[in-house]
Amino acid sequence: MSFSITILGSGAALPTGRRNPTSQYIFCNNRHILIDCGEGTQMQLRKYGIPFQRISHIFISHLHGDHFFGLPGLLSTMNLLGRNRGVTIYGPAQLKDILKQLFECGGQKLMFKLNFIPTSTDGEQILFEDRLIKITSFPLKHRIPTTGFRIQEKQKEYRLNPDAIEKDHVPIEFFHRLKKGESPTNEQGKILNFTKYTFPPKPSLSYSYCSDTAYFEDLIPFIEKSTLLYHEATFLEKESDRAKLTFHSTAKEAAIIAKKADVNHLVLGHLSSRYNEQDSHLSEAQIEFEKTTIAEDGLKIDLLKIN
Amino acid sequence: MSFSITILGSGAALPTGRRNPTSQYIFCNNRHILIDCGEGTQMQLRKYGIPFQRISHIFISHLHGDHFFGLPGLLSTMNLLGRNRGVTIYGPAQLKDILKQLFECGGQKLMFKLNFIPTSTDGEQILFEDRLIKITSFPLKHRIPTTGFRIQEKQKEYRLNPDAIEKDHVPIEFFHRLKKGESPTNEQGKILNFTKYTFPPKPSLSYSYCSDTAYFEDLIPFIEKSTLLYHEATFLEKESDRAKLTFHSTAKEAAIIAKKADVNHLVLGHLSSRYNEQDSHLSEAQIEFEKTTIAEDGLKIDLLKIN
Repeated sequence: MSFSITILGSGAALPTGRRNPTSQYIFCNNRHILIDCGEGTQMQLRKYGIPFQRISHIFISHLHGDHFFGLPGLLSTMNLLGRNRGVTIYGPAQLKDILKQLFECGGQKLMFKLNFIPTSTDGEQILFEDRLIKITSFPLKHRIPTTGFRIQEKQKEYRLNPDAIEKDHVPIEFFHRLKKGESPTNEQGKILNFTKYTFPPKPSLSYSYCSDTAYFEDLIPFIEKSTLLYHEATFLEKESDRAKLTFHSTAKEAAIIAKKADVNHLVLGHLSSRYNEQDSHLSEAQIEFEKTTIAEDGLKIDLLKIN
Repeated sequence: MSFSITILGSGAALPTGRRNPTSQYIFCNNRHILIDCGEGTQMQLRKYGIPFQRISHIFISHLHGDHFFGLPGLLSTMNLLGRNRGVTIYGPAQLKDILKQLFECGGQKLMFKLNFIPTSTDGEQILFEDRLIKITSFPLKHRIPTTGFRIQEKQKEYRLNPDAIEKDHVPIEFFHRLKKGESPTNEQGKILNFTKYTFPPKPSLSYSYCSDTAYFEDLIPFIEKSTLLYHEATFLEKESDRAKLTFHSTAKEAAIIAKKADVNHLVLGHLSSRYNEQDSHLSEAQIEFEKTTIAEDGLKIDLLKIN
């Protein structure tokens, strides 16, 4: 089991030498996921040694350029490198036509299947689900339709208690059902209660991603108790007028959301290029929520370690 | 008078850590010009300290992503930084709609005027002209419609010969016409022959840009006697089959074009990511054309120095 995020771009609309536009790589239970894809994402993936041909799911939060202008180039590069495994893109419906037009005008035929799942800002939507994880979207409050995403591990298996199993000579064929939390009956008609033979599952981790958004308490139910919350903090409180005007958040507001949603850890990103340092963001946020980190390009956070 | 080019991206379709996709900045007689704008161009402009708000003319050779995927981001950044001076883009007609759609979907209104001049592959076209320079396009041979560009200084003024002028007491009011190569008549009815009072003009410099193209002798008339020729050299001769298939050139072919066009200096770029070194390109080219340089990101060439 693995669950980590790598920040590929921690900046806002104006890239700087230090902060690229928004993109994050998520490695979760052997799934390789990209969230947002600002200009230069393919170079960042290469820089940080991420095997980007393994990425098969790309989530785009909204159609501001700093969140998707790197997508055509990334798909083009995947194609040129001989990809044949499909890619699924989740994002606003218009994105499908944009990509189509961009590849058509260049006469470029993708040699892999490009699936497109349109997102909606109508409440919570399940975008992806398998045996181990579930990915949902939920509405944010921005100038154009924007969604956040949550990647949630499903409940894990109960862990066998070897001592109890050995003592009662529980046969191996019942292990599978016990791990699922079921209580099978053995050949002698005795119920094998799973609570006797197992320990509780390891906790299920989850990562929530909120970019870009004004302060928006309505999103709290969708991100509650996340192991890690990424929330944009484009501004500081002293620029709160500017934050309101542009539908962005301050570091303090992001931290209040983290506190109210009772998350475990907070990482702040999308910092405006006007700030040359990040200590002010950190101290402003930590008044409200202690366990805060400021995103930097290349930062990797292992959710297993912060849980 | 100044005339220099800066290579912002010297790579081909697949960017590497060392070579960004194609883009070049030209500073010519106080005009700030960009040719092609691959992904990451705005970051490269920043990296090399180029004042990109001064760029008012952007030329796009064709609609393969590695030549224009950085354009939406650059325009967006210009806008966010408060630009109000217009930008003129010269490129394939479809590019206008692409940009329109990209900005509309993000709800982004450009606060400066975006002029668009469609290019054509129908022979030579004059795209821009002022008192000092002329910029033309000409067709290349690629998989989709593609043009090269030539930036040409117009004939410069004749330079006054101070000794001859002093000797004959030529009044100052005739200097202007003499410098233009005219022979005015003075108050005594005497013709002041400009050849007597001036030296020939300094040579007019020109830069020709050919990317991407197969070996194509038809382009020679359009680039003849350029001070500097940029020609793509995606491949080496040992990959000539691949070059033909993809409508690209080898280093040798580019050098033959330079020789036949009688240019002064050649710079080769658009090197495929398969090559880790560039010495093979250089030696292959120099068999045909000695004065060859291999482009690298950040390379600046002053045309006054190589003339």
